[in-house]
Amino acid sequence: MRTIKLTISYDGTGYKGWQIQKNGPSVQGEIEKALKSLLKKATCLHGSGRTDSGVHARGQVAHFKMSGNIPLSNIIDALNSLLPNDIVIIGAEEINSDFHARYDAKLKTYSYRIFNSKNPDPFLEKYSWRVPYTLNIPLMKREAAELEGRHDFKSFQATNKREGTSHSLSSPRKRGSIRNIYRLDIKKRGPEIIIDIEGNGFLYNMVRNIVGTLVDIARGHIPPGSMKKILANKDRTTAGPTAPAKGLFLMEVKY
Amino acid sequence: MRTIKLTISYDGTGYKGWQIQKNGPSVQGEIEKALKSLLKKATCLHGSGRTDSGVHARGQVAHFKMSGNIPLSNIIDALNSLLPNDIVIIGAEEINSDFHARYDAKLKTYSYRIFNSKNPDPFLEKYSWRVPYTLNIPLMKREAAELEGRHDFKSFQATNKREGTSHSLSSPRKRGSIRNIYRLDIKKRGPEIIIDIEGNGFLYNMVRNIVGTLVDIARGHIPPGSMKKILANKDRTTAGPTAPAKGLFLMEVKY
Repeated sequence: MRTIKLTISYDGTGYKGWQIQKNGPSVQGEIEKALKSLLKKATCLHGSGRTDSGVHARGQVAHFKMSGNIPLSNIIDALNSLLPNDIVIIGAEEINSDFHARYDAKLKTYSYRIFNSKNPDPFLEKYSWRVPYTLNIPLMKREAAELEGRHDFKSFQATNKREGTSHSLSSPRKRGSIRNIYRLDIKKRGPEIIIDIEGNGFLYNMVRNIVGTLVDIARGHIPPGSMKKILANKDRTTAGPTAPAKGLFLMEVKY
Repeated sequence: MRTIKLTISYDGTGYKGWQIQKNGPSVQGEIEKALKSLLKKATCLHGSGRTDSGVHARGQVAHFKMSGNIPLSNIIDALNSLLPNDIVIIGAEEINSDFHARYDAKLKTYSYRIFNSKNPDPFLEKYSWRVPYTLNIPLMKREAAELEGRHDFKSFQATNKREGTSHSLSSPRKRGSIRNIYRLDIKKRGPEIIIDIEGNGFLYNMVRNIVGTLVDIARGHIPPGSMKKILANKDRTTAGPTAPAKGLFLMEVKY
């Protein structure tokens, strides 16, 4: 058996998220369908983690097992010809047989796009969160810096019933809600604000809750200097709202 | 009665084009529906010209007549709250009562996006034509230069039954297939090639036929130096194929 690691880019707009769902199409489901058609055999695809309904990816990683000697470039071309246009296999490599896309992930990078404009733009609508308020970007950057490093991110963990599905990268029970954010960069490009977050793992909704809090601070809804306290509170209710899924992109998973 | 000139941006992916059709939603149809709901009265919207199914716009212009004194900014906000997210009113102004969005147009700018890549990208799929072949861009630019100026563009006019619907900007009968292209710019931005065309009017499918011909030359399907002859032939069959609608954007209409 060969173990194949895939790198996948997808527009999540039309999907109920990565994981197979009963109530609509999923990215995993579409790729498993294409694999079944290519390999003539039901094949399980293991992703690096779930992405929610409407979340996009430019570098999701997943693995599967196969027999036969189809060359890697043919696997990519065949899957892309079978897949809908909004899911694209951008890379395939053969990897050691004990590789696991989820358990071996060491680092993930997410990017969140804010469109800071009073007026909507039909081409950014599905790929960003439009925020019409004036945002204090230097303040946003100062507060974001408080989040870099190793912290208990309980204040940014979803408190709904799906809380248990946090996508920790390894030994989730031991780590609880402690994670390490290596980098949190905020860039302004015209009316767009791009927030890049790199870390060793993320709690459920953590990136979207951080972004929602940063926006609440930057628009003056939460007082300057609050981020440190919010983090220390370990209480989701003191942080800001959850930013919409459509602005979030899973950019890279490193092993 | 007031005459209102609207500037409109839309993602054409989900529409059968600008003009009202029986077989599916149209941009004009959606805006007329919103106008009816806002003004409590059936209202005709006159566009600067049709855009085909799948063609996008960042600066389509249209006008309508209304009574009442709703301020312009309220008209914009009300229409945008009534319209689907892929159609956005980006400007509204009150204009002299004899203004006509189609007959008074003096200049139109289109932009065509080519994604020059072997591999697809889910985020560019609906907004560009993916061309997997190596393209000779300097040659493409030299051949494109032959098209600037006043010419008979019959070789680039659609020959199907819709030929009669050429969107000439003024006195179409007198001009026949003669048009003036003021500017034809080709820019390369990473894997993307952006072709901007500015002219006093365009025949039906003219931009898409020009782009299809430029790509055929740039990939070596049509020999270098052919553009001048193709133009002189006044024969659609000697030019290249029609580039897909999804890469085309109507950028601006000037009056």
